[in-house]
Amino acid sequence: MTPAAAAPSNRAYRRLSVEERRAQLLGAALTLFAHRAPDEVSLDEVATVAGVSRPLVYRYFPGGRQQLYEAALRSAAEELILCFAEPAVGPPTERVTRVLDRYLAFVDQHDAGFSALLRGGSVAETSHTSTIVDEVRRAAADQILLHLGRGAGSDPGPRLRMMVRTWIAAVEAASLIWLDEEKQPAASELRDWLVDQFIGLLAVTAATDPGTAAAVAELLPLETAVGPAWLADRLTPVVGAAAHLLPPG
Amino acid sequence: MTPAAAAPSNRAYRRLSVEERRAQLLGAALTLFAHRAPDEVSLDEVATVAGVSRPLVYRYFPGGRQQLYEAALRSAAEELILCFAEPAVGPPTERVTRVLDRYLAFVDQHDAGFSALLRGGSVAETSHTSTIVDEVRRAAADQILLHLGRGAGSDPGPRLRMMVRTWIAAVEAASLIWLDEEKQPAASELRDWLVDQFIGLLAVTAATDPGTAAAVAELLPLETAVGPAWLADRLTPVVGAAAHLLPPG
Repeated sequence: MTPAAAAPSNRAYRRLSVEERRAQLLGAALTLFAHRAPDEVSLDEVATVAGVSRPLVYRYFPGGRQQLYEAALRSAAEELILCFAEPAVGPPTERVTRVLDRYLAFVDQHDAGFSALLRGGSVAETSHTSTIVDEVRRAAADQILLHLGRGAGSDPGPRLRMMVRTWIAAVEAASLIWLDEEKQPAASELRDWLVDQFIGLLAVTAATDPGTAAAVAELLPLETAVGPAWLADRLTPVVGAAAHLLPPG
Repeated sequence: MTPAAAAPSNRAYRRLSVEERRAQLLGAALTLFAHRAPDEVSLDEVATVAGVSRPLVYRYFPGGRQQLYEAALRSAAEELILCFAEPAVGPPTERVTRVLDRYLAFVDQHDAGFSALLRGGSVAETSHTSTIVDEVRRAAADQILLHLGRGAGSDPGPRLRMMVRTWIAAVEAASLIWLDEEKQPAASELRDWLVDQFIGLLAVTAATDPGTAAAVAELLPLETAVGPAWLADRLTPVVGAAAHLLPPG
């Protein structure tokens, strides 16, 4: 590796392998892309943060900012997918709660980048970046279905799958609104509400879809009193308020 | 209006006013953009469909395809916003049902264009197009809040507003999945499920947010037995199945 920088020491250059250097540049890019829209980040800044020269950045990413952005996004996507990995043991609502905790921590750490990516309209957005986002959504849906007892090999049916995917879209939308509203309410409060939404969606979907009803019936014995039962306790009066409207029989 | 197909007549040109001609070109563009991604539509095709020459299209839209796409999108957005307009009388769930009927008919009619626009990654997508999409979402949220008795002048509170916006995101996501899955199930079945989701979200949000609980309490007397009461009837056994988990007291 040839020295190329403005200030940083040549020895540090030689010590890094190609992989290490690449990881270092990606780390610098991720830091910058996390808190600013991709259009606002220049390669000069990436070079400065990484403590290397601009030509060195180009040597690793000849496609320039777009290539670096896509590589950084790929790396962030892998990190985000790891957030969804959760052992399939214990009450399912608690697993979903832990997944959401990690997801919201990721959103918090990558606020501006997350927002710019999902809002669209950025010049850095291409069919490549959309594909990466779709991969994350698919991985998220597969993981959530796993915790609903409908992992690989067991068909969740179209309605339950659609429910999980719409809930993930709702989580994304809520995260973007949360960032807009200066991260209010507290992440834990947002998380609890998103878990409640999940339980509510399962309940209404189970009301008309036999496949979802069967999945819910299998899940309930795994739950403890602090999970959906707590919500059931809260929901009963709301549902009860409509009881006088029920048709007889 | 004179027929103006394959071999356009100059007389037809003269007969149309500037506004009429513009509307004709936009109509042709909307037809093409509705069923194909913007990147796949050429100005030549727009000219052919409108029965005019390519230079004439450029005279009205000197910015070329991008300008035409944005104008067509603006026109489609206005049409979509009209879908949400619904008199604020009668049971709120029936109003939401009618709004969703019109929304899903629009999605059906503009399938490929709707999909391309919301999926992102198109070269035709810019900060302008994102702004137009955001305007539609904002108008949709305001209309839904109106039917929840929280129109202009009455503050819905942050949680209820966030709930409505996340539900709109879920409706969008469900619409995209519906298009992917060759418009299965029937639009009316999808609509009923989305209304159920809406009621379920209101119920779980009311369980922890006093503002939403107050809004729901005001809405229930407006409902008839076929609205949320029907769902309550279906939900009760699901909620009941968790009852044995409830802590005593």
